[in-house]
Amino acid sequence: MATTRPATSPPDLMSVRHKVSAALTRFLDAKDEAAPGAELLYLTSTLRAFLTGGKRLRSVLCVYGWQAAGGDGEMTAAIRAAASLELFQVFALVHDDVMDDSDVRRGRPSAHRALAAAYTDNGGPHGRAAAHGLGAAVLLGDLALVWSDEFLHTAGLDPHRLAQVLPLVAEMRSEVMYGQLLDLQTTGRLTGDVETALHVIRYKTAKYTVERPLHIGAAVAGAPPAVLDACTAFGIPLGEAFQLRDDLLGVFGDPGKTGKPVLDDLREGKATVLMALAVQRASRAERKTLSGLVGRSDLDEGQAAEIRAVLDSTGARQTVEEKITARRDEALAALDEAPFPEETTDQLREIALAATERQT
Amino acid sequence: MATTRPATSPPDLMSVRHKVSAALTRFLDAKDEAAPGAELLYLTSTLRAFLTGGKRLRSVLCVYGWQAAGGDGEMTAAIRAAASLELFQVFALVHDDVMDDSDVRRGRPSAHRALAAAYTDNGGPHGRAAAHGLGAAVLLGDLALVWSDEFLHTAGLDPHRLAQVLPLVAEMRSEVMYGQLLDLQTTGRLTGDVETALHVIRYKTAKYTVERPLHIGAAVAGAPPAVLDACTAFGIPLGEAFQLRDDLLGVFGDPGKTGKPVLDDLREGKATVLMALAVQRASRAERKTLSGLVGRSDLDEGQAAEIRAVLDSTGARQTVEEKITARRDEALAALDEAPFPEETTDQLREIALAATERQT
Repeated sequence: MATTRPATSPPDLMSVRHKVSAALTRFLDAKDEAAPGAELLYLTSTLRAFLTGGKRLRSVLCVYGWQAAGGDGEMTAAIRAAASLELFQVFALVHDDVMDDSDVRRGRPSAHRALAAAYTDNGGPHGRAAAHGLGAAVLLGDLALVWSDEFLHTAGLDPHRLAQVLPLVAEMRSEVMYGQLLDLQTTGRLTGDVETALHVIRYKTAKYTVERPLHIGAAVAGAPPAVLDACTAFGIPLGEAFQLRDDLLGVFGDPGKTGKPVLDDLREGKATVLMALAVQRASRAERKTLSGLVGRSDLDEGQAAEIRAVLDSTGARQTVEEKITARRDEALAALDEAPFPEETTDQLREIALAATERQT
Repeated sequence: MATTRPATSPPDLMSVRHKVSAALTRFLDAKDEAAPGAELLYLTSTLRAFLTGGKRLRSVLCVYGWQAAGGDGEMTAAIRAAASLELFQVFALVHDDVMDDSDVRRGRPSAHRALAAAYTDNGGPHGRAAAHGLGAAVLLGDLALVWSDEFLHTAGLDPHRLAQVLPLVAEMRSEVMYGQLLDLQTTGRLTGDVETALHVIRYKTAKYTVERPLHIGAAVAGAPPAVLDACTAFGIPLGEAFQLRDDLLGVFGDPGKTGKPVLDDLREGKATVLMALAVQRASRAERKTLSGLVGRSDLDEGQAAEIRAVLDSTGARQTVEEKITARRDEALAALDEAPFPEETTDQLREIALAATERQT
């Protein structure tokens, strides 16, 4: 059991990121080589560009989950499982940007915009560029999704261990799609419904970004239920805190650091906990400001400043900060009880602090 | 080995279709019951509507592939594998309609149109309906894709057998996406490139609709390589013939029978073998007709009749008919050599004739 045995030479953040990147590059190189035609390079090159960005948070958590369950030594399978999560994340981002019609992702054009530009660069008619970009991005996302599967299936797990991992992956995927659906249904409807907003981030982020990567890594190492439960006790509050921080950065962040325009969430009318709290507490005049401006696709910086003032004056921003702190502390307390090797506990503690205090 | 042993009570078409439908209903019922919120019913009800249509061709071929490899008796795993292909097909159709911006599928509104209508019916603002419908349809397709996986993983196959099936599924999925990509890149560009058009249908249809369903069913029964090879020898020419027939029906078919408006392919400027042959052989005047009309989104019935006249006068239609016959005969000849039980050979022969002579 993992409780007492310390993992030998625990992998550090940088080495996990590096190994995952190398595994992804090898996988895509093999795909390019086996491609039935050169056309596919058009998609894989866009995929590569997307995979170079990102914090690799899910990868790191997956490998730490593996370690939490006593995994040590040869970590190829854990790295491949982690890399498969990164491909899945590209799928989620690309389709998310299509659904939200976002122009920018990670400081660069979103996939459908990049593919539309590539189309006209290659001589395609301008009139079809937007439709082509959208279609190609849907397809790129689909490809990333099925390749994420293939990566996992060929991770070198023995069939019985793979059969243990697959149900967790299936849960994760259904959950993130349920979260997306909630997001889609609530976006653009300004309400004071904090409960629903919390429900969305539980599915869309807490489970997807933190709990399930830990679970999947743990299952790769053959984790017993107690380890999976401890991953949940740590992962859910941390994941919620992570998303609450993201929502604050989406409105108050520095676009130069986050790589995402700071007006997008407000223009979309994203139904965040932050916004729901503000609506709940707003005066008549403040409510009028919110309902008049939030969700306007032509929102300018001055109008955004008016919204930000309401998020401050209602105390919504402050309450979200408090919620982040409470959840972070809950996650840290869960770690103290977790049957993980000490090194893993230390590393997860660092991640919990970084993820909740970050500015990007 | 399957060569000599006849399968006992081979499943007929109707019983396969019925069993697959029942398995799909049970799966979606369980999903609805386990749903974390009522919102999901919105997607699953659309999914159910989609699953009621269709010929279940892939399902039937999957079960016959299983039988071809000696499967008999208890067919639960083969039926679940077949049902998983139907869910995958819903994914492919829903995303395909998004990419092509098609209004109609199987005689009903396409998913993004149906979901846009449901959005306004539920009080959503009209201005957001199209964007919502598109986003929800992308998501619906994604969900169908991940559930098709889950269905297969829980088909009751032992882990080693599942490990034999998964690579074939991975191949199928990559192939259909490569075919989609080619389709996307060639649509709207009028050329006389028959080779490329044939390359597209090999990937988009022949492998996906015929060869791989046979392979996957065969692998469920633990097929040896000789059986898989025989599936290929039969499946590729039949699949090409099937798509060539589809292309003819897409232009000359009766919309009352096919459930698809007969102007769509021409309005999209679909780069079919039929069209490439016509371009290749067209006189100056005929070429002018084609380049002036094919791909016009406002094409009317009179203009479509002008295009059809060119497809006839150039002999393109007749050549496609001949190609269908040649491929059908090739498929039938391959059956004569195949190491399949006699009942299976008979059933596949019937399918080959029906698929190439059909009017719907």
